[in-house]
Amino acid sequence: MSVYLHDIPLPQAQTRLREALEESNLWRVLGALSIPLDENALGRVTAEPVWAKVSSPHYHASAMDGFAVRAIFTNGALPSKPLALQIGPEAEYVDTGDPLPQWANAVIPIENVESLDEHGNITKDIRDPASIRIRAAVAPWSHVRPLGEDIVATQLVLPAGHILRAVDLGAIAAAGHQEIKVARKPKVAILPTGTELVPIGSKLKTGDILEYNSLVLAAQVKAMGGEPTRYPIIKDDFELICERVIEAAQNHDLVLLNAGSSAGAEDFSAKVVDKLGTLLVHGVAVRPGHPVILGLINRQSNRQSSIVNRKSESLILDTSPLTPIIGVPGYPVSAALTIDIFVEPILAKWLGRRPRELPTETAILTRKLVSPAGDDDFVRVVVGKVGEKLLAAPLSRGAGVISSLVQADGLALIPSGTQGVEAGEKIQVRLYRSKSEIEKTILAIGSHDLTLDLMSQFLATHDRRLVSANVGSQGGLVALKRGEAHLAGSHLLNPETGVYNISYIRQYMPNIPVKVVALVGREQGLIVQRGNPKGITNLRSLTNHMVRFSNRQRGAGTRVLLDYHLKSMTISPESIEGYYQEEYTHLGVAAAVASGRADCGLGIAAAAQALDLDFVPLFQERYDLVIPKQFAEDGLLAPLFDLLTDSDFRRAVSKLTGYDVSVMGKMILEDE
Amino acid sequence: MSVYLHDIPLPQAQTRLREALEESNLWRVLGALSIPLDENALGRVTAEPVWAKVSSPHYHASAMDGFAVRAIFTNGALPSKPLALQIGPEAEYVDTGDPLPQWANAVIPIENVESLDEHGNITKDIRDPASIRIRAAVAPWSHVRPLGEDIVATQLVLPAGHILRAVDLGAIAAAGHQEIKVARKPKVAILPTGTELVPIGSKLKTGDILEYNSLVLAAQVKAMGGEPTRYPIIKDDFELICERVIEAAQNHDLVLLNAGSSAGAEDFSAKVVDKLGTLLVHGVAVRPGHPVILGLINRQSNRQSSIVNRKSESLILDTSPLTPIIGVPGYPVSAALTIDIFVEPILAKWLGRRPRELPTETAILTRKLVSPAGDDDFVRVVVGKVGEKLLAAPLSRGAGVISSLVQADGLALIPSGTQGVEAGEKIQVRLYRSKSEIEKTILAIGSHDLTLDLMSQFLATHDRRLVSANVGSQGGLVALKRGEAHLAGSHLLNPETGVYNISYIRQYMPNIPVKVVALVGREQGLIVQRGNPKGITNLRSLTNHMVRFSNRQRGAGTRVLLDYHLKSMTISPESIEGYYQEEYTHLGVAAAVASGRADCGLGIAAAAQALDLDFVPLFQERYDLVIPKQFAEDGLLAPLFDLLTDSDFRRAVSKLTGYDVSVMGKMILEDE
Repeated sequence: MSVYLHDIPLPQAQTRLREALEESNLWRVLGALSIPLDENALGRVTAEPVWAKVSSPHYHASAMDGFAVRAIFTNGALPSKPLALQIGPEAEYVDTGDPLPQWANAVIPIENVESLDEHGNITKDIRDPASIRIRAAVAPWSHVRPLGEDIVATQLVLPAGHILRAVDLGAIAAAGHQEIKVARKPKVAILPTGTELVPIGSKLKTGDILEYNSLVLAAQVKAMGGEPTRYPIIKDDFELICERVIEAAQNHDLVLLNAGSSAGAEDFSAKVVDKLGTLLVHGVAVRPGHPVILGLINRQSNRQSSIVNRKSESLILDTSPLTPIIGVPGYPVSAALTIDIFVEPILAKWLGRRPRELPTETAILTRKLVSPAGDDDFVRVVVGKVGEKLLAAPLSRGAGVISSLVQADGLALIPSGTQGVEAGEKIQVRLYRSKSEIEKTILAIGSHDLTLDLMSQFLATHDRRLVSANVGSQGGLVALKRGEAHLAGSHLLNPETGVYNISYIRQYMPNIPVKVVALVGREQGLIVQRGNPKGITNLRSLTNHMVRFSNRQRGAGTRVLLDYHLKSMTISPESIEGYYQEEYTHLGVAAAVASGRADCGLGIAAAAQALDLDFVPLFQERYDLVIPKQFAEDGLLAPLFDLLTDSDFRRAVSKLTGYDVSVMGKMILEDE
Repeated sequence: MSVYLHDIPLPQAQTRLREALEESNLWRVLGALSIPLDENALGRVTAEPVWAKVSSPHYHASAMDGFAVRAIFTNGALPSKPLALQIGPEAEYVDTGDPLPQWANAVIPIENVESLDEHGNITKDIRDPASIRIRAAVAPWSHVRPLGEDIVATQLVLPAGHILRAVDLGAIAAAGHQEIKVARKPKVAILPTGTELVPIGSKLKTGDILEYNSLVLAAQVKAMGGEPTRYPIIKDDFELICERVIEAAQNHDLVLLNAGSSAGAEDFSAKVVDKLGTLLVHGVAVRPGHPVILGLINRQSNRQSSIVNRKSESLILDTSPLTPIIGVPGYPVSAALTIDIFVEPILAKWLGRRPRELPTETAILTRKLVSPAGDDDFVRVVVGKVGEKLLAAPLSRGAGVISSLVQADGLALIPSGTQGVEAGEKIQVRLYRSKSEIEKTILAIGSHDLTLDLMSQFLATHDRRLVSANVGSQGGLVALKRGEAHLAGSHLLNPETGVYNISYIRQYMPNIPVKVVALVGREQGLIVQRGNPKGITNLRSLTNHMVRFSNRQRGAGTRVLLDYHLKSMTISPESIEGYYQEEYTHLGVAAAVASGRADCGLGIAAAAQALDLDFVPLFQERYDLVIPKQFAEDGLLAPLFDLLTDSDFRRAVSKLTGYDVSVMGKMILEDE
């Protein structure tokens, strides 16, 4: 389809860009400027080494309130044989920080001195006596901060390329500076393109796409030390895009052209770069984000640009006729990763600082990952420590799912050359969060319930992070058995006994002592469209071939409940249109109904209410937390148990429609 | 001396402050405001949970450029049995992101389709054919991003108390918001007091102290998310300080009163707090920083304040008649640590975020530390990994030495109850730097040479950090033997053989295979005062009792050199005034001469030049790098070996006075 798009390996793409920048004399610190030494210097990067202009202290200073003396004159003083020193020739009062008199070379702290009046009697005028009495000799230079103790004039205070912290500013000031030379902030233009795009906050019509990539990109650039400019949305019009790119290239060190980087009919980015300069790379074997474009724009020397140039002396534009451009893919996850992979190293170079590096840890993958062998595949993962194991659970891999980046604790790389990683294998994870945060993470897996979201909210204020993965009740028990979570939410009804969860726990996780606590009672029923247009009243309605059903995945407690009742009503799954259409959460089922994709689905009242749908209540069920005993007794989970008796939490849960908190905290099972 | 100062344990002080804030209803999030959702929201803290207002996508969207179809109509298509679909009723072209037609439930990517014209022939008009031919069936919902795939309306997007990152802003926008409610920045007044203080950049007279604490404090507050106000310097005048504190307390959430927090005659802080409010704590058993003051100021309800109050609606002042005040000690290290220990938890609470926590690692202490048993003692350390061992080497413990905070890689806590830690014992270190930075740190120990500073500069651009500790040449060899550094700089002359270093290496680190590389040849001589007023010409001059000498510590190569020559000239150490006055670096000796504390010292020409002193050249010597073979072959040190042949580096070194680079890189010894 395209004359352009052809994926090349990531290292090759990075090298090609770097070499092009080197050839254009753009692979260096862009420029420097002197800024006042105040708190706004925080985070700026030193453009040259900072050498001390003065010493600190710049004189011999007393380190205590006391009396300056010459050490040799104190020789012989003993507790039993005190020695008197005359104020003036032999001793002089000094406050902390005061300069020592020329003749003095030590300080005796005031608390080690008896102050005497002119008659040799002890006086209360401790700072201004006639003489002092001491009962110990002092060594030369004791309680003195000698000249240069902190900083010696001419010494190196800070190297170039250092990111300024608060204490650095103090040291620079102490070394006699009142300004600091820092790297100029690279100016980065961000151009969102797309006819379908609408600005943040717009009232949405079908087909509208909220333009928030430019916001994320600008914030990323800012966080990396650059100065972003967000351009207004540009329609998919080749000439218009060219015009804006030319304009942006005049005034910026780097242009980011968002979307249109693929090879579709309205993907103009590659053609724009090809027309206005050099297309270096179109397509990188990296996922998400492969339709990346790397290129250089020839700056126009038309009238407009020469005017701009005169004003912007500090811009790199003056020294190079080229402006690098990056075509950033449109999917938000691809876009954000493109900035991390391609823009961060350039900004680091331009600022003269080290490229940012995320701490890396080895974790055990909880779920098999398949990956195209040719690609470097970045998978967002949630990370938690269960027992002694650091686990990485993959999140949604959709390039459009920005919430997966928000939830991610880190990024696992499946390098090109491998077709995937099996569950239980070790992978390297670049962590977004500190290890201590990760060690305070409670991993919940199993059935989804809205109470868990509320719980997560409440736990956040108690120094815990609750991360929940929704794999259905049975999936949760299996995960507990494999040691992959701290607890599982479960509502599995035994059709024979009518008892919740216990038989399943024994079946799926035999020999693991557990604690089972009731969390809530809740109503299950049919989520139907507003006004219930299909007149759905009970499970029998599902056999109407005009009714499209949306089901939960196998292993979900709701699915078990459905099957139990279908069986007892002798309704065959095959008679239900959509029985095999699976969703993974209550809200997923509700969304399917809200969108018209289905007419109904079995779920909880709260999910119907959330999406403004109607609800046909059918059954009451209990939702429990299953916790292996080894974790139940761990301090990590203590705040969670506290919550079960917290009146604010109970009140918040009881406000959700269809929830009964009377069972909350009831001990269902406690193994020895 | 004081009615106030009495150290209490740190946890007790923290509790007392917290309880006082709780009683005053000040232990909570101060307030919230809505700000626009743009890149300036970065780093702000969410004041309430963010719930999704819309779903994303908010319709079923095509995930590819291709044709929307109804999956059921594609059944039966096979490579051998293609199926044609009419454009209009059966298929419709969609770009990525376009909504699916109501009747469609799947997308076939354009590359899997043959476009046909009205005659059933393949057409190049791939987007607008009359029909399409497919050779495979598609499953329902393939290549579709269903409504809510990313975010479902009403779901929790972010909890309260979350520090906003770039991707979070995208998710909030995707969820339908254009503003975000964040915690108000706490306003912190910083009041520097002290008659001896002068502003940054002042021309210094003896006794002047540069006031840069307020800069460091302001930058710390800013980095923590607060809004600092720096007041001008206030003289040591009780009434004046009271006036300013009253004013600051009207308009700020917290007042930091810097210095005057001890118990000296001009230390007014405690008296000011006592007069204007409640003195909660004066003195905390923590080092550095023990003369801390914690208190609450009663805000005055005079005319001026009520005017201010009307304007500052959002200030906490409206709801509480009290403003907390912290008396911050004057020494810069104490001041900075006081902010970390006492201010950070308050700001965290006021912003509703988690208190910052530094990652902690266990390291082996290289040098014995003595500590008062009653205090929590925070020791700044340099951290590096040598072989498999993570080492912590203590830096200067002086509370006035801000450069030690700049150089520190972390903070080791010697908790109260212990009198110290022995060398070789394990200690907990809170790290300022990432582990990966620390793993790229080359630890050099031994003799000091200015070339090492230059080397550190050059290595910084090659992804290495060179940290050097100056313990003298012998000390360096002993440290290598103990596995505490990667390399040692050494210039130890064997008086019998006239050969440098080798005999010492065999003596101090037997059985350790090493590589010894020459770094520089350099001139040693006597550093004397400008104009050489005492007419010092050679070592014999030192026996003149009017000449005060400044010596290097035992084990330093320069000391060995001196002793060698003194012996050969039969000069007794006792005949030299100052022989036992020891300095640890060449610059230290030069500073002693520059300050007039000594008349001369043996050292290198560069040190004399650095402090604008005169130099009497005496001997030429060689300075080598001693590197255990195990590290010499490690990739960590490769950039350092590269430097020895780097022409820029050689040029930079040869510019230093008295340096000879001709020997640089010469292999002196290479064990098998």
